[in-house]
Amino acid sequence: MNKHALHKMTYGLYIVSSIKDGKPNGQIANVAFQVTSEPVQVVIALHKDNLTCEYVHTSKVFSISVLDQTADMIFIGRFGFRSGRDFNKFDNTISWKIGKTGAPIVTDHSIAYIEANVAQEMDLGMHILFIGKVVDANIIKDGKPLTYDYYHNVLRGKEPPKAPTFSI
Amino acid sequence: MNKHALHKMTYGLYIVSSIKDGKPNGQIANVAFQVTSEPVQVVIALHKDNLTCEYVHTSKVFSISVLDQTADMIFIGRFGFRSGRDFNKFDNTISWKIGKTGAPIVTDHSIAYIEANVAQEMDLGMHILFIGKVVDANIIKDGKPLTYDYYHNVLRGKEPPKAPTFSI
Repeated sequence: MNKHALHKMTYGLYIVSSIKDGKPNGQIANVAFQVTSEPVQVVIALHKDNLTCEYVHTSKVFSISVLDQTADMIFIGRFGFRSGRDFNKFDNTISWKIGKTGAPIVTDHSIAYIEANVAQEMDLGMHILFIGKVVDANIIKDGKPLTYDYYHNVLRGKEPPKAPTFSI
Repeated sequence: MNKHALHKMTYGLYIVSSIKDGKPNGQIANVAFQVTSEPVQVVIALHKDNLTCEYVHTSKVFSISVLDQTADMIFIGRFGFRSGRDFNKFDNTISWKIGKTGAPIVTDHSIAYIEANVAQEMDLGMHILFIGKVVDANIIKDGKPLTYDYYHNVLRGKEPPKAPTFSI
C-alpha cells in the first residue's frame, strides 16, 4: 500500500467547537462534510484524546466554522496545536458567539458556519465519527475556503499526529 | 438556516466502484474521506437508490478512484448521470482493472486509487455511510485532483439530486 495515494483526496479546513459545563473549546479539523440533504446532516471525525471530542460526546452539540484563506498560522496554531486543557482558546482576543444549540462558534477568518445536534455516533478506534442534524447554518462573509491542500502547500502547515489523515 | 453556507465546505470528486455477482458498477461521489490513520480507514456515503450502494452493501468491498482535472463532462456523465441498471459502464472503452478486494477500479482520468473492505455501515436515511478498512492504495500518475469546486465552477457541472450535498 502506498499511503501517499490517500493524500490525493481533497479536504477543507475547519474549526469544530463545542461546550461542556459552560466552558467552550474548539479545534482544527479537516474531516467535516455534508452526508444527507433531507434532513440536512453533517459528519465530523474527532480524535478521542482531544478535549473537543469529549465536549461533543458529552454535550451532543457542535459547530463548524468554515475557514478562509485569510487564516494565518498563528490563528490556526491556536486551535490546532494547543490544548484547551491548559489554555482558554475562547477569550476576547478572537471573535466568537454562542449559537442556537449552545455551542460556541468562531467567526474570525470564517466565511460560514454550521451548527448541529449529534444524532448518531460511531466508534472508529482512535476517532469518533459524529453525525449531526443541522440546526442552523449561515454565511459570514465572502472569501475563498481554506483547503487542506492550501494549508500544506501555501501556508506550509504540518499535519498534527491526531489528524485522521496523519501518516508517517 | 441558509443552506448556501453548507456549499462553502470542500469536497473532491471520485468514482466509487463495487461488484456483485461478477458484474462491476461505479458512480461519481463527492463524499470520500480518510477517517483514521491506524488502521487506515476511509468513509463514503452513497444514496440508497443507487446501484453501487446495493453492490457495496452486498459485496462489502469498494474502490475509490481519485479523479484529476483531465476528466471531462462526457466521462463524468458516464458515471454520474447514468445508471448501471440499464448500461454497462465497465466496457472496453475505458481503462479499469480488478483490485485485490475483487472490486473494479477505474484508472482513466485518475491519479490514485484506494481499495477497502467494509468494516461498518450506518443508515443515515437517504444515504448509507460505509466505513472501509483500506486494503490497498496506489498512485497512478501525477496530476491535479478534481475538486467539487472545480467541477461546478470550471466544468459547469450540475449537482445530481441524489448527491449528499444536494439542495434546491
